[in-house]
Amino acid sequence: MPPAPASAVTFRLATRDDLPRVVALIADDAVAAARTGSFGPAHVAGFEAIEASPNDELVVAELDGEVVGVMQLTFVPGISRNGATRLLVEAVRVDAALRGQGLGRALMTYAHERGRERGCVLAQLTSDKQREDAHRFYRSLGYAQSHEGFKLPL
Amino acid sequence: MPPAPASAVTFRLATRDDLPRVVALIADDAVAAARTGSFGPAHVAGFEAIEASPNDELVVAELDGEVVGVMQLTFVPGISRNGATRLLVEAVRVDAALRGQGLGRALMTYAHERGRERGCVLAQLTSDKQREDAHRFYRSLGYAQSHEGFKLPL
Repeated sequence: MPPAPASAVTFRLATRDDLPRVVALIADDAVAAARTGSFGPAHVAGFEAIEASPNDELVVAELDGEVVGVMQLTFVPGISRNGATRLLVEAVRVDAALRGQGLGRALMTYAHERGRERGCVLAQLTSDKQREDAHRFYRSLGYAQSHEGFKLPL
Repeated sequence: MPPAPASAVTFRLATRDDLPRVVALIADDAVAAARTGSFGPAHVAGFEAIEASPNDELVVAELDGEVVGVMQLTFVPGISRNGATRLLVEAVRVDAALRGQGLGRALMTYAHERGRERGCVLAQLTSDKQREDAHRFYRSLGYAQSHEGFKLPL
């Protein structure tokens, strides 16, 4: 066994050059594969919109020079919960070959640090009802499984 | 019975002057009352952050010159789902005295129109597990109750 990689992982904003790898990570998943598609212009347009937004960050986790994880952070200002800014976390993925070694936990810890830096007092995310392992993971981080999540194609 | 108000309702961006009413609407709710607080500087700061964001809109519903509903829209760019932009809907409220008359449906229809105008292909929201009436309402609009919603104080 190599040493646990979670302590060696680093985080940075994704660049345009990371995109094929980021799309592959997001698609390497039984739930998301069909709807993510293979890398193409729509993903580039999505990346450019994230880069143009002051409230969105696409973050990659790097280990030994390789991108091994990804997540998107959105900082959402608001009125409810006494004017709280929320941290919305989407598209959390860790390389399938490296799961169970603490990388997901390191990724979420970094998400929460970035949220606090941006003044967020609440983190929120949704997870497909099929992903029971992910639900256990989020509960283990202290998340309350308090809400139902709804989606509608427009 | 007065005529159904849903056909007469209009929508516009909230202004600073609407805030006390908006906070009262958000707080007039068994689930949210304790955590919303009464109108104060934190809500003003939240409003100013929404106004400063290119991807957030605080929308009010008006009927006969009165604010009778509110919701917040966030347009979230992304990589997953083939580079989809998502419409996030938060803090949906209708005046308690006017519920059951189609105002909530009109509000959500407007939300979806605004989302499409901004290029969103998916609407998403979460609803506290205690709000079973709300869950029925969202399902009646075509939403799939497909996800678990998680929250963590930061």
